[in-house]
Amino acid sequence: MEREFITQLRERLPPHPLLKLGIGDDAAILSLGQGADVVVTTDLLADGTHFLSTEQDLARIGRKALAVNLSDLAAMAARPVGAVVAIALPKSGIGGRSPLEVATRLYDGLLPLAAEFNVPIAGGDTNTWNGPLVIAVTALGAVTPRGPLLRSGAKIGDSIYVTGTLGGSLAGKHLDFTPRVAEALELAKRHNLHAGMDITDGLAIDLDRLITASNCGAVLDLASIPLSAACGVTNALGDGEDFELLMTAAVPLGPLPCGITKIGEIIADRGLWSRDETGAVTRLPVTGYLHR
Amino acid sequence: MEREFITQLRERLPPHPLLKLGIGDDAAILSLGQGADVVVTTDLLADGTHFLSTEQDLARIGRKALAVNLSDLAAMAARPVGAVVAIALPKSGIGGRSPLEVATRLYDGLLPLAAEFNVPIAGGDTNTWNGPLVIAVTALGAVTPRGPLLRSGAKIGDSIYVTGTLGGSLAGKHLDFTPRVAEALELAKRHNLHAGMDITDGLAIDLDRLITASNCGAVLDLASIPLSAACGVTNALGDGEDFELLMTAAVPLGPLPCGITKIGEIIADRGLWSRDETGAVTRLPVTGYLHR
Repeated sequence: MEREFITQLRERLPPHPLLKLGIGDDAAILSLGQGADVVVTTDLLADGTHFLSTEQDLARIGRKALAVNLSDLAAMAARPVGAVVAIALPKSGIGGRSPLEVATRLYDGLLPLAAEFNVPIAGGDTNTWNGPLVIAVTALGAVTPRGPLLRSGAKIGDSIYVTGTLGGSLAGKHLDFTPRVAEALELAKRHNLHAGMDITDGLAIDLDRLITASNCGAVLDLASIPLSAACGVTNALGDGEDFELLMTAAVPLGPLPCGITKIGEIIADRGLWSRDETGAVTRLPVTGYLHR
Repeated sequence: MEREFITQLRERLPPHPLLKLGIGDDAAILSLGQGADVVVTTDLLADGTHFLSTEQDLARIGRKALAVNLSDLAAMAARPVGAVVAIALPKSGIGGRSPLEVATRLYDGLLPLAAEFNVPIAGGDTNTWNGPLVIAVTALGAVTPRGPLLRSGAKIGDSIYVTGTLGGSLAGKHLDFTPRVAEALELAKRHNLHAGMDITDGLAIDLDRLITASNCGAVLDLASIPLSAACGVTNALGDGEDFELLMTAAVPLGPLPCGITKIGEIIADRGLWSRDETGAVTRLPVTGYLHR
């Protein structure tokens, strides 16, 4: 439903001089006046949809709630400056834990990640209610002197890069991934990045969003896509929740300790294409995991 | 549960050079570097706790979700610069409306308020799930040259003021109140305000929080408290959800079109006191509505 709603909402939202970048990228950019901008992103995780509170450690869920937002800041090559945390806790608790104990356990995972990324938790809103667990984090960032990294900047001839490996995240990585904040800042400092985003719904669907925003096409060398353990190309293209960076640049990127791999090129022909070892190009179906 | 949790969380959150003001006031203040600060506040509204989706118009609920956050910015005398909106929609819809229609109707109330206060909606996260409606808004603001208005600034001898009238908000005002943003900015420009907050849980409990943060006491002239229609002093002290401003200053404040009334004084003796027409002072019980 979200894409349909976003399309509708975009049409309803008027432009505003303070809103430098609105809905449609990984985060928004607001002007505070006097030349200062703030990058802002919000992600809500709901029990049964984004996690399973009866099966997964609440600390990992709390960690993920912050991590997905840090990944959105990384996608913009923004430096995190803080986050706020809103939680709705089931009145009856979870798995024998009281609401207070549930909240404490969520923070057991969230706070170490905040410390690791030097992100102050600025505030929050903690409620109990007659519903399942919901945790909504909003993260704020500062734009570096290189400016924000957008989805819309890809240029024909750019190489396409991904960090880390792709596929199979739902087996565990989706709760424990490292937001690529340091990597994005380091790459943006070293190189002139043209476009970027994080992979949340799957390489194919997310790259399709990037080339749509950039008014171009992309061809992937499927054999070059870095695969996570026990994964094939189909997993890499469609599993989603990788939270790796997807970037384009006219210059070679890397190296990075987490790995960075060239997987294709930006082309003029619209749409998503794959190229095999012989150089034959075929249309690639846009698969991916869509959160509903 | 929230107060107990906040106390515990405060002890767990380390100080951070970017965090100029953390948990405990109406909003937090983060430094973006190079002298720029951002004010941030988040409030989550949950069905059955903060509103009743089957009885109340979804447009009023969407409006309230933004309004409570704007009220928090007003409490800091901050200028709103934007907001993000995270929503969890029941998959089965509400009252015959599909999830998409529910989201649209929430925005039918939220967007006119955003336009009225010139606040761009910068982004959001809209999900469906197997739970009731949750809407979490985060609002960002800029500090005016006078600096932020804090709970901790009250000084002995200050007069205590409230805007508008108090009591009976749950009969309807809690969904339709006007966030006192313009009033806070105007007062902060005209006068040297010492302390301020918005009244969310009731005058008594919120004033108690203000004097606790300011290490002082307060005496209220009960007969002077401006009452909403069909309300008595008990309603004004304890009903909550007034979303009026509570401020202290050493100088007379006002006038304002919405009304502004002196209701008491800041004193050295800790705690909350009431004074009758004869000047006799008695201890006032700290009543109020605590969201659980």
